[in-house]
Amino acid sequence: MKKEADTHIKELMHLLLQSYRDQAGIIKIDSENQLNRSVLIDIIDKLRCIIFPGYFGKKNISAGSVEYYAGDLLEGIMFNLSKQIAKALQHRQDCAESAQEADAKAEELTYHFLSRLPQVREYLAMDVSASFDGDPAAYSKDEIISSYPGIFAIMVYRLAHVLYELEIPLIPRIMTEYAHNVTGIDIHPGARIGHHFFIDHGTGIVIGETTIIGNHVKLYQGVTLGGLSTRGGQSMKGAKRHPTIEDNVTIYSGASILGGNTIIGTGVVIGSNAFVTKSVPEKTKVSVKNPELQYKTDEQPVWKYQEFQQEEFWDYVI
Amino acid sequence: MKKEADTHIKELMHLLLQSYRDQAGIIKIDSENQLNRSVLIDIIDKLRCIIFPGYFGKKNISAGSVEYYAGDLLEGIMFNLSKQIAKALQHRQDCAESAQEADAKAEELTYHFLSRLPQVREYLAMDVSASFDGDPAAYSKDEIISSYPGIFAIMVYRLAHVLYELEIPLIPRIMTEYAHNVTGIDIHPGARIGHHFFIDHGTGIVIGETTIIGNHVKLYQGVTLGGLSTRGGQSMKGAKRHPTIEDNVTIYSGASILGGNTIIGTGVVIGSNAFVTKSVPEKTKVSVKNPELQYKTDEQPVWKYQEFQQEEFWDYVI
Amino acid sequence: MKKEADTHIKELMHLLLQSYRDQAGIIKIDSENQLNRSVLIDIIDKLRCIIFPGYFGKKNISAGSVEYYAGDLLEGIMFNLSKQIAKALQHRQDCAESAQEADAKAEELTYHFLSRLPQVREYLAMDVSASFDGDPAAYSKDEIISSYPGIFAIMVYRLAHVLYELEIPLIPRIMTEYAHNVTGIDIHPGARIGHHFFIDHGTGIVIGETTIIGNHVKLYQGVTLGGLSTRGGQSMKGAKRHPTIEDNVTIYSGASILGGNTIIGTGVVIGSNAFVTKSVPEKTKVSVKNPELQYKTDEQPVWKYQEFQQEEFWDYVI
Repeated sequence: MKKEADTHIKELMHLLLQSYRDQAGIIKIDSENQLNRSVLIDIIDKLRCIIFPGYFGKKNISAGSVEYYAGDLLEGIMFNLSKQIAKALQHRQDCAESAQEADAKAEELTYHFLSRLPQVREYLAMDVSASFDGDPAAYSKDEIISSYPGIFAIMVYRLAHVLYELEIPLIPRIMTEYAHNVTGIDIHPGARIGHHFFIDHGTGIVIGETTIIGNHVKLYQGVTLGGLSTRGGQSMKGAKRHPTIEDNVTIYSGASILGGNTIIGTGVVIGSNAFVTKSVPEKTKVSVKNPELQYKTDEQPVWKYQEFQQEEFWDYVI
Repeated sequence: MKKEADTHIKELMHLLLQSYRDQAGIIKIDSENQLNRSVLIDIIDKLRCIIFPGYFGKKNISAGSVEYYAGDLLEGIMFNLSKQIAKALQHRQDCAESAQEADAKAEELTYHFLSRLPQVREYLAMDVSASFDGDPAAYSKDEIISSYPGIFAIMVYRLAHVLYELEIPLIPRIMTEYAHNVTGIDIHPGARIGHHFFIDHGTGIVIGETTIIGNHVKLYQGVTLGGLSTRGGQSMKGAKRHPTIEDNVTIYSGASILGGNTIIGTGVVIGSNAFVTKSVPEKTKVSVKNPELQYKTDEQPVWKYQEFQQEEFWDYVI
Repeated sequence: MKKEADTHIKELMHLLLQSYRDQAGIIKIDSENQLNRSVLIDIIDKLRCIIFPGYFGKKNISAGSVEYYAGDLLEGIMFNLSKQIAKALQHRQDCAESAQEADAKAEELTYHFLSRLPQVREYLAMDVSASFDGDPAAYSKDEIISSYPGIFAIMVYRLAHVLYELEIPLIPRIMTEYAHNVTGIDIHPGARIGHHFFIDHGTGIVIGETTIIGNHVKLYQGVTLGGLSTRGGQSMKGAKRHPTIEDNVTIYSGASILGGNTIIGTGVVIGSNAFVTKSVPEKTKVSVKNPELQYKTDEQPVWKYQEFQQEEFWDYVI
């Protein structure tokens, strides 16, 4: 049996090496610049500890020790992130840099990224407040920081967006796709999002690359802020394909807002399942005339159509 | 270069410490009561081994050894969970307890929680049966226990709900949000759910805090059992904001049932994508008059509207 | 206190052992054939390293070392997968095999499975191309391979489908449910899917067991390819319950295509949120007449109904 296994291995290796020659486009050979996803995930974990000290990680933190705690984490992040950024820079096909240039530039970029942490914290503090104020099921800010998927997805997005603005390839998207894995919330790192951003439940949310979102915006599960078409494929790269959402907008579950010219004005409320492809003027409440419901029982095999009571809906929902 | 890195660290630490002073609301300093999320996840894993012995974990279990296997796990859970509960109790702002009081109370609560395991197992055995009976794609109960996300989400919910009833802060929500991460199924630990509960596919399901669900209920992916509005924010805390679903109800994918006064009667079937904000009497089949579909081809650039054949729909779907 | 804890453990164990007798259906006692989910996840990780060498794992790979890298991984996979398959074969209730027979058969099946890897790579190379060509937000194939959830879900599905075709119980579903956990994309291993398959965003997608999908098909988030009813439960096992999607079909977000007799012809485009239960002839564009939107402002408390401009929709979307 052992001999047979050896033969099998040889045959399989023969097939596999042939396959590596045939599909050479999905191999990365002789490349020194592999990004390491698990290192990036570890960096996200450590950044979370620095951003919300005392909430994650194993140690309790005293007022006296927080400096050492954060300093220790920061040093590790600087070292590891800088190495990953150097690798990422060399991935760029259009402007391959030497290893040495990449290292120096990566250190600089890492420093710039980390110097933005106070601003990220400022925004996240406001996001946590918005979650607490907006959610009757929230018992405390501790609960929100410890367990809300929306806060995790927003944190990773805010970090990745800084890296995206610094034009670092690959890493921002790997980070937000990690948050997407964890939370079901898919925010492209290119999106621009203001403070007091609140995501409730969140599963199924998609926020496209060129979306712009103002301050005090609330999104519920299943909301898409997307493009109108992908017919153009790569030729549409760089175009404003996704909508602009102004301040104080609330978008209820399952609604889709599509298109790069679509602007949702200040204070607008968009009802559940609305499909919006045009701009909406400020302070407007937009609702779907929901599909009629049909009722049937064994005793009454006749259809009863019941008009959706829209006035009542407005009373309750918005 | 090394010197520069040192300067960078110092500058960054300066910024960070200033940020800790400015955003003091998202730090937990001088607190002995950090919950450890990874310990809680480990407890969930171990509880799963106790609930479904022989399905998870590395060892095969004999009739003779199951007692030692379960006993060993139980001891570890008691010790670790009790510590986490003690920390959670001290989180409560309104009634801060001394560390000693918290420890004693935590041991008591842990015991109460664990003594409910047989009931949780009883319900889960019925949930597994409901999954098998209801799903033509299920090949065996082994497959359901080993791989169905619905069963995992329901198990974590049932455990977290016991902790919620014991009024333990934070831990129940951290647990159900962990299951939400893993499965995309978001069940608030406060919901009350009967036996023979079946969730198919499940991604995107949201079940709010004050939802009540009877026995033999089936939910498909994307169903929301939610509140009508969150306009009230924190002021609505404690109110019945989410619907009541009576026995033997089936709710197909993408349907939303909203509102604390909405009661879905026994034996009701709710069709895909229905948006229901009013009570439905028992034994009624509720369906959406689906939006008309429009067909277009290059050869026939005229619109063809085709009425949705609702009768046929009833024949097939429900 | 220690003594009390001992008493508690004893009482709890008493309850638990009683529960094991009462709910014996959810225990696996005296079974040598536990599958180990974490071993299976590890096998998926290693297969990903073999399929996309140089993208995952910690080492950089040279043209000279790729053979040893892959050979080493392959050997580990053969050994571990063969053991898991042997256990899975013994799970089958209808044809329990002896341990020895199962071992021999498992080695054979493992070899057959691994010899299909070149074909899986061939298809995945085409899937990666389809993702790049179809997505304006994709910056490089590296980004797609490293971070796109669609590619991960498709890879796991393609591997699991080979195992499903070899009639290996349990393992295929455990694998695809792992991918479902990670990505929110639920593809049953029984589905048959052609090359150049592109999933964008993906959260909430459900593809049922008897679905057939041709080449060059694109799916967006929230699409269901499902059954019309599960009323029949287990009695419908084996029937063609899910649709057939022919070549070059695009299905936009939130659409549901249901039923085993439903055939979506070559080149069809299905618009967002369409609910399709009948066949669609080739080259047809199907769109929803979206529910009317209603606008309301404080200044204009009168309803304004605005017909959805369908022509415009066609201009933009499809």
